Amino acid sequence: MKSWRDSVRNVVPYTPGEQPKEDGVIKLNTNENPYPPSPKVLEAMKEITNLRKYPDPAVSDLTEALSSYYRIDSSEVFVGVGSDDVLAIAFLTFFNSDVPVFFPDITYSFYDVWADLFQIPFERKPLNEKFEICAQDYYGENGGVIFPNPNAPTGALLELETVRDILDHNREVLVIVDEAYIDFGGESALSLIHDYDNLLVVQTYSKSRSLAGLRIGYAMGNRELIKAMSDVKYSFNSYTMNEPSIVMGTAAIKDEEYFQDTRNKIIKTREWFQEELRELGFSFADSKANFVFAAHESIPARELFEAAKKEKIYVRYFDKPRINNYLRISIGTDEEMQALVRFFKSMMNK
Amino acid sequence: MKSWRDSVRNVVPYTPGEQPKEDGVIKLNTNENPYPPSPKVLEAMKEITNLRKYPDPAVSDLTEALSSYYRIDSSEVFVGVGSDDVLAIAFLTFFNSDVPVFFPDITYSFYDVWADLFQIPFERKPLNEKFEICAQDYYGENGGVIFPNPNAPTGALLELETVRDILDHNREVLVIVDEAYIDFGGESALSLIHDYDNLLVVQTYSKSRSLAGLRIGYAMGNRELIKAMSDVKYSFNSYTMNEPSIVMGTAAIKDEEYFQDTRNKIIKTREWFQEELRELGFSFADSKANFVFAAHESIPARELFEAAKKEKIYVRYFDKPRINNYLRISIGTDEEMQALVRFFKSMMNK
Repeated sequence: MKSWRDSVRNVVPYTPGEQPKEDGVIKLNTNENPYPPSPKVLEAMKEITNLRKYPDPAVSDLTEALSSYYRIDSSEVFVGVGSDDVLAIAFLTFFNSDVPVFFPDITYSFYDVWADLFQIPFERKPLNEKFEICAQDYYGENGGVIFPNPNAPTGALLELETVRDILDHNREVLVIVDEAYIDFGGESALSLIHDYDNLLVVQTYSKSRSLAGLRIGYAMGNRELIKAMSDVKYSFNSYTMNEPSIVMGTAAIKDEEYFQDTRNKIIKTREWFQEELRELGFSFADSKANFVFAAHESIPARELFEAAKKEKIYVRYFDKPRINNYLRISIGTDEEMQALVRFFKSMMNK
Repeated sequence: MKSWRDSVRNVVPYTPGEQPKEDGVIKLNTNENPYPPSPKVLEAMKEITNLRKYPDPAVSDLTEALSSYYRIDSSEVFVGVGSDDVLAIAFLTFFNSDVPVFFPDITYSFYDVWADLFQIPFERKPLNEKFEICAQDYYGENGGVIFPNPNAPTGALLELETVRDILDHNREVLVIVDEAYIDFGGESALSLIHDYDNLLVVQTYSKSRSLAGLRIGYAMGNRELIKAMSDVKYSFNSYTMNEPSIVMGTAAIKDEEYFQDTRNKIIKTREWFQEELRELGFSFADSKANFVFAAHESIPARELFEAAKKEKIYVRYFDKPRINNYLRISIGTDEEMQALVRFFKSMMNK
């Protein structure tokens, strides 16, 4: 018999990291910032009095604050509900050819999910043995290119020259540089958006700006790209950014001192933590993100993951080919990382 | 020359109603609630302290509050960023056949926008001369059915028996009843979700709950429908509801007394306002929503719309066939509606 079930879109959804509800957890599994947002964000919350009206569909206050911060025109900024929303809309807007979109085999695990959802053909380009992106792999004919920089979950950074090389070999398709982690030590491709009209740079408030709970992401690129994305976004949902996000997101971007301070703390903790990991027998690519992707010389990653979880320390484990012996460990406070190091030492009798 | 422009998705985006930024405006153009949300919502805002972490992707607190309010299982509730988000995801999830989806010719103007965006074939079924939906028009083979009840922008209500009749003739496809305005006087189809496994009932916080600024909508239906939508939603963006929406949305649904009070005030104002309109020479279908869709016996709608705007009174005008002599007027406070009536009287020398 015919049924509504015959027309349901079949997808294998993305599985987000666990959000444990118990107390006393050390949560190093979703790359959140261990520091609270700028106190100015909570102050701004008190200014939210009008919730009965629809928010500004153009999100002008936040868009202008971002354009002023990055010294670009407000027509070059697109704001969305987290960088996942921004990236999903970019996939829907730009990846409409029969030629496959290229992205790394080891990368943010949402790319193939969006491709499946929107029935976009894609091809995974393997990282080399050092888990690095090889520019030449992206030279061939394709329907678009996307990669994170620093890459996730490896934390490895591509130098800006290599990003430029990939762009030089892809002038006819959209190239997305997903910079969710760029504030933790890399050079942004933002400086290239006026040289390449097909470059979209995507960033987020969820990591370096301590505001994963607000859901704010943004894309920067030439105004024609931004207009095309806005048209698609307005065709999906005119009002996606709610009033609290607009008000608090605008306040957050204006507190540069707080941002620099917490960012530098995390970088310092990461450098110290990497040294500790090395002494414990872990190997990993040098991370320029707020996490480290590490494998131990003798203890399988799954075993470490399970044991840590029993001690209420949550790290991320991906049961996937090539990376199933690695842990992705978010950088928390010094105290949290010390607790993890102590736990590893006790496990290894060191 | 080949260009990234060749692969851009072409859409004609939805145009939301104006959100004027000037002061002293009487805003009757976007069907917002004239009353602020429950004071308990602003109280709950003070409880939001943790913004650095991702929100609960399952939105459990809000989902459970809704399921408890409507006395259904939490697996029968899907929450999204406004009912536009919920409806867009439903289109993407369920309308995947080659047979056209049916909806009225005069209806919520987003339906054809979503159909275009997702390349879904559709067929508009004309309302009769009284602007009523005719159940028989929806009997034929189709890829799904959607209609608002009360309909927008007419405000006309379908009795539950007619909704049931449409369902009885459509057992093999998804039927969406879009109940954005149901709290202002209609009977919800929620009571039918256990009889029809292909029925999805969609409601929103933006009108009767005075929270358009938070962006909360929800769908109710059998758990298999909800699961299919959740899978697609998780494939698009795992974390769409931000922490403020979850916390304040949960508080709002619990203040039933405030809800009943403001809802009844709006109904009372609407009934009085309809009498005034009739005396002024307007004709309209009896409205069961928080707006009236009215045409004047002698003055063209566009003229009334422009003149009111000059007096900073914003109503909605649609420059579309069949309805371009109508104004859609949201129900504001008594004072706001009195101001509009005074303005009409002065224009008509009454």
